[in-house]
Amino acid sequence: MIIIIQCRDRVGLVADISRILSEAQLNIISMREHVDKAGERFFMRLEVDGLGDEAQLEDKMQQILPDGAIIQVNPVPDKKIVVMVTKEYHCLADILIRNSFGTLGAAVLCVIGNHALLQKICDRFEIPFVMIAYEEDKEISEQNIIRKIQSYNPDYIVLAKFMRILSPAFVANFPSKIINIHHSFLPAFAGANPYRQAFERGVKLIGATAHFVTDDLDEGPIIAQQIIPVNHSFTASDMVRSGKEIETAVLAKALRLVLNDRVFVYQNKTVVFE
Amino acid sequence: MIIIIQCRDRVGLVADISRILSEAQLNIISMREHVDKAGERFFMRLEVDGLGDEAQLEDKMQQILPDGAIIQVNPVPDKKIVVMVTKEYHCLADILIRNSFGTLGAAVLCVIGNHALLQKICDRFEIPFVMIAYEEDKEISEQNIIRKIQSYNPDYIVLAKFMRILSPAFVANFPSKIINIHHSFLPAFAGANPYRQAFERGVKLIGATAHFVTDDLDEGPIIAQQIIPVNHSFTASDMVRSGKEIETAVLAKALRLVLNDRVFVYQNKTVVFE
Amino acid sequence: MIIIIQCRDRVGLVADISRILSEAQLNIISMREHVDKAGERFFMRLEVDGLGDEAQLEDKMQQILPDGAIIQVNPVPDKKIVVMVTKEYHCLADILIRNSFGTLGAAVLCVIGNHALLQKICDRFEIPFVMIAYEEDKEISEQNIIRKIQSYNPDYIVLAKFMRILSPAFVANFPSKIINIHHSFLPAFAGANPYRQAFERGVKLIGATAHFVTDDLDEGPIIAQQIIPVNHSFTASDMVRSGKEIETAVLAKALRLVLNDRVFVYQNKTVVFE
Amino acid sequence: MIIIIQCRDRVGLVADISRILSEAQLNIISMREHVDKAGERFFMRLEVDGLGDEAQLEDKMQQILPDGAIIQVNPVPDKKIVVMVTKEYHCLADILIRNSFGTLGAAVLCVIGNHALLQKICDRFEIPFVMIAYEEDKEISEQNIIRKIQSYNPDYIVLAKFMRILSPAFVANFPSKIINIHHSFLPAFAGANPYRQAFERGVKLIGATAHFVTDDLDEGPIIAQQIIPVNHSFTASDMVRSGKEIETAVLAKALRLVLNDRVFVYQNKTVVFE
Repeated sequence: MIIIIQCRDRVGLVADISRILSEAQLNIISMREHVDKAGERFFMRLEVDGLGDEAQLEDKMQQILPDGAIIQVNPVPDKKIVVMVTKEYHCLADILIRNSFGTLGAAVLCVIGNHALLQKICDRFEIPFVMIAYEEDKEISEQNIIRKIQSYNPDYIVLAKFMRILSPAFVANFPSKIINIHHSFLPAFAGANPYRQAFERGVKLIGATAHFVTDDLDEGPIIAQQIIPVNHSFTASDMVRSGKEIETAVLAKALRLVLNDRVFVYQNKTVVFE
Repeated sequence: MIIIIQCRDRVGLVADISRILSEAQLNIISMREHVDKAGERFFMRLEVDGLGDEAQLEDKMQQILPDGAIIQVNPVPDKKIVVMVTKEYHCLADILIRNSFGTLGAAVLCVIGNHALLQKICDRFEIPFVMIAYEEDKEISEQNIIRKIQSYNPDYIVLAKFMRILSPAFVANFPSKIINIHHSFLPAFAGANPYRQAFERGVKLIGATAHFVTDDLDEGPIIAQQIIPVNHSFTASDMVRSGKEIETAVLAKALRLVLNDRVFVYQNKTVVFE
Repeated sequence: MIIIIQCRDRVGLVADISRILSEAQLNIISMREHVDKAGERFFMRLEVDGLGDEAQLEDKMQQILPDGAIIQVNPVPDKKIVVMVTKEYHCLADILIRNSFGTLGAAVLCVIGNHALLQKICDRFEIPFVMIAYEEDKEISEQNIIRKIQSYNPDYIVLAKFMRILSPAFVANFPSKIINIHHSFLPAFAGANPYRQAFERGVKLIGATAHFVTDDLDEGPIIAQQIIPVNHSFTASDMVRSGKEIETAVLAKALRLVLNDRVFVYQNKTVVFE
Repeated sequence: MIIIIQCRDRVGLVADISRILSEAQLNIISMREHVDKAGERFFMRLEVDGLGDEAQLEDKMQQILPDGAIIQVNPVPDKKIVVMVTKEYHCLADILIRNSFGTLGAAVLCVIGNHALLQKICDRFEIPFVMIAYEEDKEISEQNIIRKIQSYNPDYIVLAKFMRILSPAFVANFPSKIINIHHSFLPAFAGANPYRQAFERGVKLIGATAHFVTDDLDEGPIIAQQIIPVNHSFTASDMVRSGKEIETAVLAKALRLVLNDRVFVYQNKTVVFE
């Protein structure tokens, strides 16, 4: 059983929470907690052993936790995701492979693309591919995408190299539900063409960043980041090629963390219990 | 206040421990725990806020913990170490620097060397250097070292590139108190000349390992490990030079972890709450 | 144009080689060289710009190079591989994806498995899957595999988590052509169950190693290695899961290097011009 | 013998250079070259074996190289540096240690500080410490520093955590001679308080960058960069502490590269032959 809690901090919280578990004869296998002292915020992730009534447990917890607490016992066990792509295959293919072998931690319901290029790889894995080309009116295009996503009601929307900027209006439909992979070590090289920027600047490391999407482009809470070394012999396109390897790895890691309920979002940051 | 606990696992331990803290009006800032399921062993490290009577707290804890529990409230705040060296300066110098600026987390009482080479660097930092050359009879030499160490009664003995193998009889005098830096990624290349071995084998990464010393050479509980990439252009002596950088870094990290009471030893392994 | 050279070292080699290129009006874009001083061995990889007669160039080079020199101008541009697997999908799937999108640097001719489990993923990518179950007589099984591989005449055979030990007789059929991914940081934890070994030893890093296969199990020339950190909270199966990520990454890297003619083998080591 | 060459690219350069070496009976041990195709720029670093007349060799090279070529045979073997500091000891101490044991690759002539705090560590190593406090008029202070540096005529000036911004006028006195360590993964978090910025942004990696100083603050050619993982449990001061470890490591690496003549500067980037 997995239990996640986020609430205002106070003395005795751990004692109260663990007492409830102990009374329910639930043995704690793993307890991870974090207190944001400045924000007086408490975060906890528990793995417990034993059989318990989920609703009853959640109810008991709610009674002892401060008002406004977020408490989830076994949060959505069978998660569902929609993936959005443009032309690059590497992140999508990795997701489809894991989905196909049951190791993704979620089911891919459909892939939405604004180019037809990745139709075929979806066909190979028998996953519906929906082509929604961008029309002149961006708002109409976004409305089409929103309707399509809502028809699937996914837990998360994964931007697996979706190369269009989503409007705040779009994002507002799916708060804390959109995960993006950005091809740089944010906040360095936000925006377009980060590898070109990295090449021009002559950096010795390039990176990738998986983050939740908020209104501000590339400014949302960071989930995971990784880098690889580059040197003077790398052209901008060598950087693109190398970068794809870590983009795939970082997005995979971020999805594993999010889909295992290991990521808490608070004030544009994440608490991640790896 | 730092509290560390190691004991047999049972249901309700966290509840009981956190209740005692709560009753004492101590607020948990950081709680790290680990359960070794196979060994039914429980490990916890707490940082708490507030003023409490250490002895009383330790006593109350002891009452609710299983027999044989190890419980320490504010374990040895002003730790003391003795460093043992041969000819290489890099690890020793790093320790002396941190000691000199008060960031080591312990006081260096003395340095014991089996060569005179590192006398001068100790003089610069006004740390006693004791030269104990190895005599023909190794046992006598070891007895001399043991006596010298015991006269200082240190919390830990740090082998900062001490290039002699210590006998089981020596080690038995200081159980779980000797920390060694081995210049390879153990268990690869245990024993002598690991860089030469690494060169011969043509590895693409070399490493360093900090570990507690037990009877079996290079077989004690590992505290920290790190690697750096090498390639065909590295000679064995290039590997030695590169390796020194990570030896210094790994030993520094291991000392920080041990001296901050973040390392538990159990059955030839460590639990490290970084 | 790519040119690779391996031969005995002597004064003036670079001058002679570059003069031939200059006379042929070929501009050097990239020149990587290595001299193994102990072995008096010279290695070079050139990328040159311009149109030249390959056979003529190779001939001219041969004349000025020491006897026994290996010289290849544009070595096998369209390489072909056969992949061997057992039950684990991660390395195979990664290879199939890259093959499907034309970024592998070789064509996958067929996949040979000793279990039926990975038939389906091969079907998805329209790659022939040949099931050769191990019979009681291992020699007969190996003979079946050898015949099948020889019918495809591949440039390389990739053991993508093939969990059977190949006999020296098998290996002798494909010298310097078999690439294996071993799930440990060799030479640590050679042999069976490396993650279990790593867990028991309590290491803080686990690794993966891609290497050419020679007679001695896990003793062949290393092409690439990588590690990831682990800690006390990892069970042996957590290590397996984490390890798969780097196994995939290391094998992908090794294949890219080998298939781009960046790897030279000499005396159980590799020279890798990354 | 080390030879470094930087010039306009043309066909036959390598042939001409290596012919001269061959005629002088000099054997190439290591040859590293890079061509910047866009800039039509050629870079080479050679290590050769044998005895040659430096001036004669340089002269012969100059004759065959394009106009404006930079060619150096055994560039400044006994390099000298001046170090500038404020209050933090870690980079300075590392430099003093290496200097003291003859492994820095240069001699430290003097340390200039704008606080008295690091006087003592310099005294320990018998290195002159010159205190130049910043006066109200920054220009006067900088003039004092410039005069002091010029009196030593160093090859490089190392800003080992010198926490004042140097004016373009200051920098103009020492073009391509000032090396700085910046406590972030540039270009992320340029300017003041990078760790505070990193903490606020919630990044999962922090970095350090060693670079040459040009007029634009934190915008000069990057020599080396490195990162370490951080997480939600890191306060801004934890990041400072962790960051110091990589600041020390990155500056040490950059100095080793520069002092071994492995770094070429061209158009705000570096070519680094590691």
